[in-house]
Amino acid sequence: MLEASKLPYENYAWERVLGACCENVIGFMPVPVGVVGSLVIDGKSYFVPMATTEGVLVASASRGSKAINLGGGAMTIVTGDEGDERHAFNSASRFAQLQRLRTTISGRNVYTQFKATTGGAMGMNMISKGVEHALHVMSTEAGFDDMNIVILSGNYCTDKKPPALNWIDGRGKGIVTGAIVPANVVRDILKSDVDSMIQMNVSKNLIGSAMAGSIGGYNAQAANLAAAIFIATGQDPAQVVESANCMTFMENYGGSPHISVTMPSIECN
Amino acid sequence: MLEASKLPYENYAWERVLGACCENVIGFMPVPVGVVGSLVIDGKSYFVPMATTEGVLVASASRGSKAINLGGGAMTIVTGDEGDERHAFNSASRFAQLQRLRTTISGRNVYTQFKATTGGAMGMNMISKGVEHALHVMSTEAGFDDMNIVILSGNYCTDKKPPALNWIDGRGKGIVTGAIVPANVVRDILKSDVDSMIQMNVSKNLIGSAMAGSIGGYNAQAANLAAAIFIATGQDPAQVVESANCMTFMENYGGSPHISVTMPSIECN
Amino acid sequence: MLEASKLPYENYAWERVLGACCENVIGFMPVPVGVVGSLVIDGKSYFVPMATTEGVLVASASRGSKAINLGGGAMTIVTGDEGDERHAFNSASRFAQLQRLRTTISGRNVYTQFKATTGGAMGMNMISKGVEHALHVMSTEAGFDDMNIVILSGNYCTDKKPPALNWIDGRGKGIVTGAIVPANVVRDILKSDVDSMIQMNVSKNLIGSAMAGSIGGYNAQAANLAAAIFIATGQDPAQVVESANCMTFMENYGGSPHISVTMPSIECN
Amino acid sequence: MLEASKLPYENYAWERVLGACCENVIGFMPVPVGVVGSLVIDGKSYFVPMATTEGVLVASASRGSKAINLGGGAMTIVTGDEGDERHAFNSASRFAQLQRLRTTISGRNVYTQFKATTGGAMGMNMISKGVEHALHVMSTEAGFDDMNIVILSGNYCTDKKPPALNWIDGRGKGIVTGAIVPANVVRDILKSDVDSMIQMNVSKNLIGSAMAGSIGGYNAQAANLAAAIFIATGQDPAQVVESANCMTFMENYGGSPHISVTMPSIECN
Repeated sequence: MLEASKLPYENYAWERVLGACCENVIGFMPVPVGVVGSLVIDGKSYFVPMATTEGVLVASASRGSKAINLGGGAMTIVTGDEGDERHAFNSASRFAQLQRLRTTISGRNVYTQFKATTGGAMGMNMISKGVEHALHVMSTEAGFDDMNIVILSGNYCTDKKPPALNWIDGRGKGIVTGAIVPANVVRDILKSDVDSMIQMNVSKNLIGSAMAGSIGGYNAQAANLAAAIFIATGQDPAQVVESANCMTFMENYGGSPHISVTMPSIECN
Repeated sequence: MLEASKLPYENYAWERVLGACCENVIGFMPVPVGVVGSLVIDGKSYFVPMATTEGVLVASASRGSKAINLGGGAMTIVTGDEGDERHAFNSASRFAQLQRLRTTISGRNVYTQFKATTGGAMGMNMISKGVEHALHVMSTEAGFDDMNIVILSGNYCTDKKPPALNWIDGRGKGIVTGAIVPANVVRDILKSDVDSMIQMNVSKNLIGSAMAGSIGGYNAQAANLAAAIFIATGQDPAQVVESANCMTFMENYGGSPHISVTMPSIECN
Repeated sequence: MLEASKLPYENYAWERVLGACCENVIGFMPVPVGVVGSLVIDGKSYFVPMATTEGVLVASASRGSKAINLGGGAMTIVTGDEGDERHAFNSASRFAQLQRLRTTISGRNVYTQFKATTGGAMGMNMISKGVEHALHVMSTEAGFDDMNIVILSGNYCTDKKPPALNWIDGRGKGIVTGAIVPANVVRDILKSDVDSMIQMNVSKNLIGSAMAGSIGGYNAQAANLAAAIFIATGQDPAQVVESANCMTFMENYGGSPHISVTMPSIECN
Repeated sequence: MLEASKLPYENYAWERVLGACCENVIGFMPVPVGVVGSLVIDGKSYFVPMATTEGVLVASASRGSKAINLGGGAMTIVTGDEGDERHAFNSASRFAQLQRLRTTISGRNVYTQFKATTGGAMGMNMISKGVEHALHVMSTEAGFDDMNIVILSGNYCTDKKPPALNWIDGRGKGIVTGAIVPANVVRDILKSDVDSMIQMNVSKNLIGSAMAGSIGGYNAQAANLAAAIFIATGQDPAQVVESANCMTFMENYGGSPHISVTMPSIECN
C-alpha cells in the first residue's frame, strides 16, 4: 500500500502521530487552510482558520465577517459550559470535575449521563475512566451488587449523533451570538435587502427545516463552517454532527436585521 | 498571518487549490491517513483509507474487518441511488438527470425537492443550475407568473443537516450491509459473547438512542468512521452530518450474530 | 361494577354498541357538545360540533370563526387524500383501492407501507385484510417462500403515533387552509395588533416548538380543537395524536395577517 | 341547531356544564364505557374504565390484564411527579408549588419553563397565573424593565404537542411499569410464543418506529388505551398526544417475557 499510495508522507512529524493518534499510517492528506477575517467578536478581532476544499467557503465567510464588522461586530453569550465545581469527579482523574448526573429509566435499563468539566480538554477518555470507577464503587461498596453493567456508553451521552437530548439540554459548549448588520451593508455588501433577508430566513431556516422534520438544523450551512474550523484546529470532525446544530434567526431591529445564531452543543477542546 | 503560521505549505500542488477549492490560503493541515483492511465486501477485498487523529480508530476498524472477513465478509444491497433515467434534467447540465420531484406546501410557501442523478459527481452545483433554469421556465413560460422565488435552497433538500426527511426518504446513496461473525470469532477476536453483544446493541443503539430522542443515530460511533473516510477520499466532511446516520442491528442467526448496518443517506461522489 | 357505577346508562341505543364497538359496558360517559360557528370555508357556512369539557374552548373557537368570517372566510387546499384509483386493491375488499407502496429495508427486515383509498371509511381493517392477502400471495405464489412475516403492522404505518414519516409524507387527509383577518378585526375582535400577532407566532409556534425539539407541533393548541371535533363526530380520539400535528403561520399581507394552517395527516373517515 | 340535532340532551346535569366547561351547548355525546379488569398493580386489584367505540379494545385489554395477573400483576415505579416542595410558588395560588425552572435562550428570545406541583390538579391555569405574576415582578421590581413579554405560553411547556422535550425531560407524571407473563400464559392466553413476541417487539416497536422517524412512539397502540381512559375519567383527551408516548420493551427473563412500559409524560389530574 505504502508504495502505491500517492499521498505525501515526507516532512511530517511522524513521531507525534504513530502510536498516538493514527495506526497503519501510509501518509497524510493535506487539507488547504484558508483564513477568514478579521472578525470582531465581543470587541476583539480574530482570524479564523478553515481547512476546506469547498470553493468560495472561505471567501463567503470573509464577506460575512466584513458585513458583521461594519455593524460593530458580533456579541456572544456562553449559555453552557460544564462549570468549575470544586470537588474532584473521582480519584481516577486529576481534571474531570463532576457537575451533574442525569438519569433515565427505560424498563429494566437505567441510563446515566455524567456531566463534568474537563479542565479544557474534550475529555471523553477521562470521563470514561471516572464513570468506570464510579460504577465499580456502586456495584461493590454502595449496595447495587445486583447491577449488571451493560456498556460504558449507552448512547445517552450522546456523542457524535444528532439526538434531541443534545439540542435541548446542550452538550459541551453552548453559545448564543448576535450581530446587527446595518441596512446599507445588507444592500451594498450582501446584495440583498432587509425585508427579503428576514422573510427568506423564516421560509428556509424555520419553515423549510420544520417541514423536513429537522431537530436542530435550523440554519443555512453551518456544518461547512464548523467542519472547516474543526479540521483546521485539530478538533474531532466527527463531532461536527452535533456541533453544527444551530438556529439562525433574523429580525428587524430598527431598520437593520439583528441576526442571531443559537448553538447549544459545540463539542470541542 | 502567513509568516506567523506554523502550518506547512511547501511541497503542495497549490495550482490545483488556489481559485478552485480554497481562498486566503496560508498553508495546509496534514491529516494522517491510516489504512484499514483488507475488508471483504461482496466477495472482493478492499483497503479503506481513513484520515484521522482519533487514536485506535484505525486499529479498531482493522480488528472489526478481520472479524468480518473470518465470517466470509460483508454483503451489501444498494437501496438508494438516484437512478439512470433517460431524459436530461434540462439543458443547463450535461450530467444531471431528473429522477423525481417531491413537493410540499406549507401555508403560502411551496417547497420542491429535485432528485436527480449526477453522473457520478455529488452534483449540488449542477442541480442548482438546473433548478434555477426550471424555476425560470415556470415563471416565464409555464403560467406561474405570480410565483415569488424566495430562495434556491429552502432547506427541504436537505443538505448538511440531520432532518428526518433524509433518514426516511434517503438522499445520495442508500446502503444496507450485513455480515455474520462466527461465534468463535466473537469470543477470540472481539473478546465478547454472542448474547451479550446482541443485548448490548439493543440497550445502547436502539433503546439508548431512542431515550435520547435520536432520529437516525441508532449506532455506536459511525460518525468517526465516516468522517475519516470522507477526509481521506476528498469528500465533503460537512456531509458526514447526514451520511453517518445509520442503524446497527444484531440478531442471533444460528448461534452467531448477524450484524447489519442500514445507511439511507450517504452523500458522496 | 354496574351497580356501583354512577355513569348513566338509560336511554341509550345499546343494541348498536354491544358486540360492535365496546365490551363489558357499564354505562356511557356523556360529553357535552357545543357548536362553533358558523364558519365560512370556501364560501360555504358550516357549524362545527365540539365535544369538550375544556371551558372557553368553544367560545374561543367561535370568536376565531367570527374573525375569519369577517375577512371573507377560510380557503382550503386538499394536499393529500388517498386518491381514486381504478383497480381494486385486492379481492379481500370491495372498497380499499391500493394507491402506492412504500418500502424500507432495515438490516434483514423489510417494512412495507400500503397506501390505499378506502371509499370514505378510515379503513384500517379493510387495509389490514388486503395486506394479509397480499402477503399470503407473495409467500405462496410470488416466489418469496422464505419470507417470514413478523407482524401485520410494523409501526411503519404509522397509526396513532407521532412519527416524522406522517408529518413528511402525510397520512389520511392533508389540508392547507388560509384566511386573511382584516387589521381592524384583529384590533376589535382579537384585541391584538398585526405586528404583535405575527411576531408572537414566530416566537411561539416556530422558534418555541423548535427549541423544544418538536416535529409537527408548530401550533398553539390544535389538539384541543381536533379532539373535540373527533369526539363529537364519532372519529377515533386516539388518532388526534397525529391528526393535530400542524403548522400555524402568519405573515403580513397588505397590512392584515394572512394566517395559514398546514395539516398533513388528518386521520378520519 | 338545537332542534335539528339528534344528540341526546335530557337527563344531564347541565348546571355543572354551562358556564363551566362548555359553551353553545346543544346536547351531549354519549361514549360507551367498558370496564377492564381487574388488573393487579403493585399487589392491588383495579378496574379500569375505558370510554371507547373501538371494537375489541376493552376485550383485548381484559385479555392482557388476565395474562398479567397470572404472572402476579404489574409493578410500577413513579419516575416523575412534580414533587412536594415547601415554599409556595407565589401568592397567586394556594396550590401550585414551584419545583424548578428550565430556561433556554434562542437569539434574543428567552423561554422559561416553570415546573410546579399543583396539589393533585392538572393545574395549567394556576401555573399560568403564577407565571404571569412572576413575570410582572421580574419586569417591575427585579430589574428586567426592558423585558418584552411576547406570550405567556411560548410552546416550551410543551402542552398537547409531541416535542422531544417532554419525552426526554418528562412532564406531568412519569411511570415505568413491568410485568412477567409466564411462558405458558403466553402460549395459552396470548396464543403466541416467547421468542416470537420478543422478536416482534424489537422489529415493530423499536426498529419500525425508528425507521419511521418517531420520537416517543415506541409502542403498539398505547394511544387507544390512553384516550379511552382519559375520556372515561374526565381527563383532557387532547393531552393524549404526549401522554400516550411510551416505549414497550420485552426481554427473556428466565424463559418468560419481562414486559415493560416506560411512560415519561402522562398529563392528568
